Amino acid sequence: MPGPRFTPLALGLPATVPFVGPETQERARGRPFAARLGANENVFGPSPRAVAAMARAAADVWMYGDPENHDLRAALAAHHGVAPGNIVVGEGIDGLLGYLVRLLVAPGDAVVTSDGAYPTFNFHVAGFGGVLHKVPYRGDHEDPEALMARAAETGAKLVYLANPDNPMGSWHGADNIARMIAAVPPGTLLVLDEAYVEFAPSGTAPAIDPEDASVIRMRTFSKGYGMAGARVGYAIGAAPLIAAFDKIRNHFGMGRIAQVGALAALGDGDWLAQVQARVAAARESLSAVARDNGLRPLPSATNFVTIDCGGDGAFARRVLAELVARDIFVRMPFVAPHDRCIRVSAGRPQDLAAFAAALPAALAAARA
Amino acid sequence: MPGPRFTPLALGLPATVPFVGPETQERARGRPFAARLGANENVFGPSPRAVAAMARAAADVWMYGDPENHDLRAALAAHHGVAPGNIVVGEGIDGLLGYLVRLLVAPGDAVVTSDGAYPTFNFHVAGFGGVLHKVPYRGDHEDPEALMARAAETGAKLVYLANPDNPMGSWHGADNIARMIAAVPPGTLLVLDEAYVEFAPSGTAPAIDPEDASVIRMRTFSKGYGMAGARVGYAIGAAPLIAAFDKIRNHFGMGRIAQVGALAALGDGDWLAQVQARVAAARESLSAVARDNGLRPLPSATNFVTIDCGGDGAFARRVLAELVARDIFVRMPFVAPHDRCIRVSAGRPQDLAAFAAALPAALAAARA
Repeated sequence: MPGPRFTPLALGLPATVPFVGPETQERARGRPFAARLGANENVFGPSPRAVAAMARAAADVWMYGDPENHDLRAALAAHHGVAPGNIVVGEGIDGLLGYLVRLLVAPGDAVVTSDGAYPTFNFHVAGFGGVLHKVPYRGDHEDPEALMARAAETGAKLVYLANPDNPMGSWHGADNIARMIAAVPPGTLLVLDEAYVEFAPSGTAPAIDPEDASVIRMRTFSKGYGMAGARVGYAIGAAPLIAAFDKIRNHFGMGRIAQVGALAALGDGDWLAQVQARVAAARESLSAVARDNGLRPLPSATNFVTIDCGGDGAFARRVLAELVARDIFVRMPFVAPHDRCIRVSAGRPQDLAAFAAALPAALAAARA
Repeated sequence: MPGPRFTPLALGLPATVPFVGPETQERARGRPFAARLGANENVFGPSPRAVAAMARAAADVWMYGDPENHDLRAALAAHHGVAPGNIVVGEGIDGLLGYLVRLLVAPGDAVVTSDGAYPTFNFHVAGFGGVLHKVPYRGDHEDPEALMARAAETGAKLVYLANPDNPMGSWHGADNIARMIAAVPPGTLLVLDEAYVEFAPSGTAPAIDPEDASVIRMRTFSKGYGMAGARVGYAIGAAPLIAAFDKIRNHFGMGRIAQVGALAALGDGDWLAQVQARVAAARESLSAVARDNGLRPLPSATNFVTIDCGGDGAFARRVLAELVARDIFVRMPFVAPHDRCIRVSAGRPQDLAAFAAALPAALAAARA
């Protein structure tokens, strides 16, 4: 019988995907969304300097990107006060999480995360045969103490925490996170996913200690810098861990246009500040819309607002479906009790107006 | 002791990288190359329509790319007369080779390739613990019969062949390849890397049978379409194999600008024809320069010419070093007896003039 023989691990993996994209939904619906507020994209976009740099770089795309990402890593190192050897650039945090899991997790190895946290991390852990142990959130927050306790108990290779958190928008202050880092069990690595940190209050991220081998920090140009479609993430960690990525990564995997755009975006702090202000204003508007409709917006340190619909998961799923039916792309947490909520990304005034216009009828239909 | 515990597999991997990029060499030299002819990039670049589409898309980069690559896959399916379910798009052939090896190769599994063939394939096989079995080339050609015999003998999960071949530029006609596909042993998958096929004589690629589970064909926008820096490759294969990539791939790994650019490039057949003509002319010029200097250019079905320097590997390495010292970026095959050659990519007239100007002195210095 000709044909491929998959590994036992690959054979056992499900065919599910972490997220269904809005384009897939639009094709199924047969019409576009009026507001794209589901994927926590940054609708305010990248710095105009980054846009211009990428447009210029289009003509240079016949050249491979620099496989060392030298210039971008040097700029990031200066930005964070670490050495280039403490930084690895990759194809989004998603890509870097895949590499990290591959480096550390063999079939059967324990990994700890929160029940309801980022599913793409879980996708990679399952993909390499790791055994996921999940601890509940404490209310709407991930629970550092419970995560550390479970990591110690299971001898976990990795423990994952996002700060700020997705999908709840909650966050811990730097002191809490610093205590968590200090409590990482021997032989465990803390994956501190700070994808949304540019939207958080100052004092959310603890100082970076590039010598600390107990934590790796994930950052991205997809959120604060508005470049989700460019696929540029990076990780900051101890030099020996960072160097290990070179053993397995797709060395020529970074696009040349993406490299140039990220470098320009990093250099435009004024634009980032404008985006931060716009996102903060949009959070306020979203929260007001929620309250106007009798719903409870959760506090957020991200570019989205998670809105408690006041019922159970079935009710929130109906609200979401009715919003989608009214051309508003939003998402919601996957697991109880968080699935009582929907999750709405910060948008421009016209996006928020479309959401505000659709919500009352969506709620009425969901209640009917 | 805090810190990560790598898998035994990761611990055992070397720190080497498949290729050192030209930017790394330029940083070490302290000055740029005058001609970039070492990475088989397509200096004639992508279709102007693709450049324009990518420049326009820069402003849309705040959105993630479509994780299904729907539009590009649909266009590729129409282009090749297969179904979208026979095509997976990924982060260059390099990225797709990594996914493919991961799906099929568990530690200890046998994989067959030619000694001196594409090192990045070997990098991925080693990275997943596969055991590489190498057969020699037959002269300057990969040897389909020997590859198939070794695959049968070792029970290989994968056997790799590039047609046309890199680094030798040689090729087999469609009949030879069709015979090879028919001879794939039960349980083996042939990886037919056709990265350079757009430069080859018509009749080099056998017809695509999307039902044939014994072969997967790798194509790219990096070579004929001139978009190496965009990282867009694709594989064509039987639907069950293609579907398996969804179990493990970085679903949001494709850049939005890259998707748009590839779609536009695919639609501009006139530009591709122009590039093919320019590359053919450049091959002739390169070959003439080689002959004028007493060297033997090998026939090529690619966008590079492999030039036999007439001595041993040590001599060719000196020629290469002397060219690099004269600001000409070229590469050479890694293993004997092919390392008697240097490998020079097709360039514009000014690139080839720079090479022609540097070669006599480089040869003289290498002989001194």
